[in-house]
Amino acid sequence: MDKLMENEVFKAFTTYAVIVTVKMMLMGPMTGYFRMTRGAFANEEDVGRKNAEEKKKLLRTHPDVERVRRCHQNDLENIIPFVVIGLLYALTAPELSTALLHFRVFAGSRIFHTIAYVGALPQPSRGLSWIVGMLVTFSMAYNVLSKVFLL
Amino acid sequence: MDKLMENEVFKAFTTYAVIVTVKMMLMGPMTGYFRMTRGAFANEEDVGRKNAEEKKKLLRTHPDVERVRRCHQNDLENIIPFVVIGLLYALTAPELSTALLHFRVFAGSRIFHTIAYVGALPQPSRGLSWIVGMLVTFSMAYNVLSKVFLL
Amino acid sequence: MDKLMENEVFKAFTTYAVIVTVKMMLMGPMTGYFRMTRGAFANEEDVGRKNAEEKKKLLRTHPDVERVRRCHQNDLENIIPFVVIGLLYALTAPELSTALLHFRVFAGSRIFHTIAYVGALPQPSRGLSWIVGMLVTFSMAYNVLSKVFLL
Repeated sequence: MDKLMENEVFKAFTTYAVIVTVKMMLMGPMTGYFRMTRGAFANEEDVGRKNAEEKKKLLRTHPDVERVRRCHQNDLENIIPFVVIGLLYALTAPELSTALLHFRVFAGSRIFHTIAYVGALPQPSRGLSWIVGMLVTFSMAYNVLSKVFLL
Repeated sequence: MDKLMENEVFKAFTTYAVIVTVKMMLMGPMTGYFRMTRGAFANEEDVGRKNAEEKKKLLRTHPDVERVRRCHQNDLENIIPFVVIGLLYALTAPELSTALLHFRVFAGSRIFHTIAYVGALPQPSRGLSWIVGMLVTFSMAYNVLSKVFLL
Repeated sequence: MDKLMENEVFKAFTTYAVIVTVKMMLMGPMTGYFRMTRGAFANEEDVGRKNAEEKKKLLRTHPDVERVRRCHQNDLENIIPFVVIGLLYALTAPELSTALLHFRVFAGSRIFHTIAYVGALPQPSRGLSWIVGMLVTFSMAYNVLSKVFLL
């Protein structure tokens, strides 16, 4: 095993990075599920065995599908920056407890964000969870740049 | 050279990560090519030298452009998680042969996915290649978490 | 601190990776700002306290919001590949001056790209900055594969 993986902070980062990335990936199958159940497809070959009339009906957008897709997009916009900046943060040797606090709050905020988005919970539930996740990433970015800065 | 890069598994990861990332990037120029040849643009400044009548005609969506953009989006949703989880997987010191199997199947499935998407091949060709790629990433995620887990 | 972070090239990579990733993340709040000021929302719960008539008016797209979203999307498509390939490039021990040249040109091109996109500057300003950023990433990808190649 690489020495990096013997480091506690790096182990914690690895665990949370895998969890939030897998969570993000699951939005793909969820989009597929909503496309099937709502009958709303984007590609002609996906409704290939139907006749022309039925095809036209199925090649449409549906609010539920679009909602899951926006949630997926928001994950791409927030979880990937967390993974990038979190990796560099883990390499700057922060305290384990501080690092765990960052990772836990981020993972929690993103899981709640998905529930709030897909479940269409009233605002500001989704807005706040988005902001909390972003603040965690900004905090790690600040920590990295205050230790390592070579322009 | 960093010691990481003397590790065979990490070398293999590096090779495949660069290949699939470059493949993903090439969807950008491909979108540009379809925008030009199909005459379908998104920004007014991209059709700047035309008169108002022609502008209106060119600021539209075209099915071929949207198809390439969906393929690009699918790459973002699948190739980036592969790179993130694959990096952490490579650091957990798996067997070279097992790692290579994962990387090769993933790269193959994503190249086939692009052909199936852009070429509008009949289903389930695109669906299957998407699922295979996802299963590879899930398998690596499972491997990582079974070796490293610190919540 | 991990040994990686004592390496000058890795320090430079870390600095620029954090800068461009934070730049990308700021497109999120910027989208929010344009949604508020232009009154163009995507989710019903975001306009929850209004009556049905007003809701319908606010659930729409606005050219300025769509422009910022396209810019954000372009960042995802270009900055993340830079971070992935740049990380692997930094691990292949390039000359510090060569590495800095790559990182600086990329960061500059992407900051200019955002100004050109959001400000709707006449082409080819945006197109050129996009191409320059892409060429930097391709150059790093070529460098990596010419040093490390294990298929």
